Amino acid sequence: MKLATLKGGRDGRLAVVSDDLARAADAGEVAATMQAAIDDWAAAAPALESLAAAVNAGEAETFPFDPSACAAILPRAYQWVDGSAYLSHVELVRKARGAEMPKNLYEDPLMYQGASDSMIGPTDDIALADEGWGIDMEAEVFAILDDVPMGVTPDAARSHIKLVGILNDVSLRNLIPAELGKGFGFLQGKPTTAFSPAVATPDSLGPAWDGTRMTLDMEVSLNGAPLGHPNAGTDLYFDIPTLIAHAAKSRRLAAGTILGTGTISNHDRGRGSACLAEVRVIETIEHGAPKTPFMRFGDRVRIEMRDAEGNSVFGAIDQRVVAYHQGS
Amino acid sequence: MKLATLKGGRDGRLAVVSDDLARAADAGEVAATMQAAIDDWAAAAPALESLAAAVNAGEAETFPFDPSACAAILPRAYQWVDGSAYLSHVELVRKARGAEMPKNLYEDPLMYQGASDSMIGPTDDIALADEGWGIDMEAEVFAILDDVPMGVTPDAARSHIKLVGILNDVSLRNLIPAELGKGFGFLQGKPTTAFSPAVATPDSLGPAWDGTRMTLDMEVSLNGAPLGHPNAGTDLYFDIPTLIAHAAKSRRLAAGTILGTGTISNHDRGRGSACLAEVRVIETIEHGAPKTPFMRFGDRVRIEMRDAEGNSVFGAIDQRVVAYHQGS
Repeated sequence: MKLATLKGGRDGRLAVVSDDLARAADAGEVAATMQAAIDDWAAAAPALESLAAAVNAGEAETFPFDPSACAAILPRAYQWVDGSAYLSHVELVRKARGAEMPKNLYEDPLMYQGASDSMIGPTDDIALADEGWGIDMEAEVFAILDDVPMGVTPDAARSHIKLVGILNDVSLRNLIPAELGKGFGFLQGKPTTAFSPAVATPDSLGPAWDGTRMTLDMEVSLNGAPLGHPNAGTDLYFDIPTLIAHAAKSRRLAAGTILGTGTISNHDRGRGSACLAEVRVIETIEHGAPKTPFMRFGDRVRIEMRDAEGNSVFGAIDQRVVAYHQGS
Repeated sequence: MKLATLKGGRDGRLAVVSDDLARAADAGEVAATMQAAIDDWAAAAPALESLAAAVNAGEAETFPFDPSACAAILPRAYQWVDGSAYLSHVELVRKARGAEMPKNLYEDPLMYQGASDSMIGPTDDIALADEGWGIDMEAEVFAILDDVPMGVTPDAARSHIKLVGILNDVSLRNLIPAELGKGFGFLQGKPTTAFSPAVATPDSLGPAWDGTRMTLDMEVSLNGAPLGHPNAGTDLYFDIPTLIAHAAKSRRLAAGTILGTGTISNHDRGRGSACLAEVRVIETIEHGAPKTPFMRFGDRVRIEMRDAEGNSVFGAIDQRVVAYHQGS
């Protein structure tokens, strides 16, 4: 089953989407919003699955599915926690700095608490006041969880993964060093996150989901030129259930928590990169300095995941970077 | 006007509370929840003010106001950002470590993105799995904001402060050093936050609110013994509007954002402390080692703010620390 949130009001309207992403049906009779559905998933899921079956069979009243009409799947979420679980990315960043890779990063996941109050849709502009902030994309896989008890084990965490999708964790590279230097994590350096048009239930993904991770390539391009296609199932050092258990060590996680894996990165450099920071780090290691600039106003980033048959799984994130003016 | 959220469902039920915290009335006819009210504050506030006037005049149907029936004012919020704006606290911590106070901390506020998905009420237990995590309180002032545009100035930020209250930012001191050492900020080290029974509109606070900060003492006690009564208006290096502008530099803040000042701390040590970490730091500076332990199962922390007449402004946070058992 695939779901989306259509724009409208602070929380949007929940829709069921056909498996081929061509058609959609309003899901308001089951749940008005994605949050309402995940709040009572045991009741909502079977009814949404019935509607999805009808949509896929051409037996429901549908309309064309338009990614530009989509909001974030949760336009405002109660929680967004993001790992950095592809350690090849972390290793590269450290190597470029000439720093050792701390051993504890292989035992204890990196994860930060992100801003979840205003998420944006797949084709919404990345609007920022200053090009000089070092505007970058990060292509990630995420899961939406139902209520997770404090102290959950990784094994038990699996059953709390209700939906999966992809996102763009926009990052401001030139603000981050000073911010992280203060020791309190990201705040200004991680502005608004954008989400794929659709999300899918794990059991509908077949071999693309192995129970703990997506196994497909993440295709990232900038202004139409491919930047990378790292595989999301390769080099993921801490899988999604392990990241959930990490987040829930000292508190429960409320239904509708969005949990990300961090930017996808493979040791195989032939795969390219899912963010510009990594491209620049590799350039620094190889040539002594970066040559690829960060994104500028007018640039366009596209992020998509295709199945073995070449079909888009969640639809594409396709965003333009624009100048923000107060009051605009 | 004072408001509270009574327990019931995921978001509780909004109530109007009398100025003396003795009586309350259901506010469901205006807004079912605090989030619904702040989403449309321009419409909700006048209607809530009318109800509050009737409650204070004894002309509304009321019931006794019971802090133990209160949930957090926003049992799940879309955002919780917390400053560390009483630099006397930061200076003490650095001094105990023998570290310099970085100059940029006097120019650029410390602030972290906190977990907002499951906040708890004023008398709810602090339930944690391990006493060894170094369980501490932090007594803070917070503001609830309406929609704040990206790039807001401190001057313009003032008008976005709609409600004010106090909270207990529970902190796990023995988890924090390793967590901050990884560079991504707090996650496991900041478990569930607890809130005062009531919140108040700034203009109802008279001289207790100066437009940018509370000016009253924060009374903190542990097992009935006073720990400190630092003044919230003294030594606040970055005021609340400045903290709002800091949070909104690269993104908008959605209505219902909760913003905190950080644990209150005065340079005047006769004021005592609002957290045990600071008590221990002072002991370390004076005697070479801390002697006050962190909180243990069975301990009880009380946090309250009184006006010039000795009346409780927001009601007391009064929590017990208990052992958490999975499934309990």
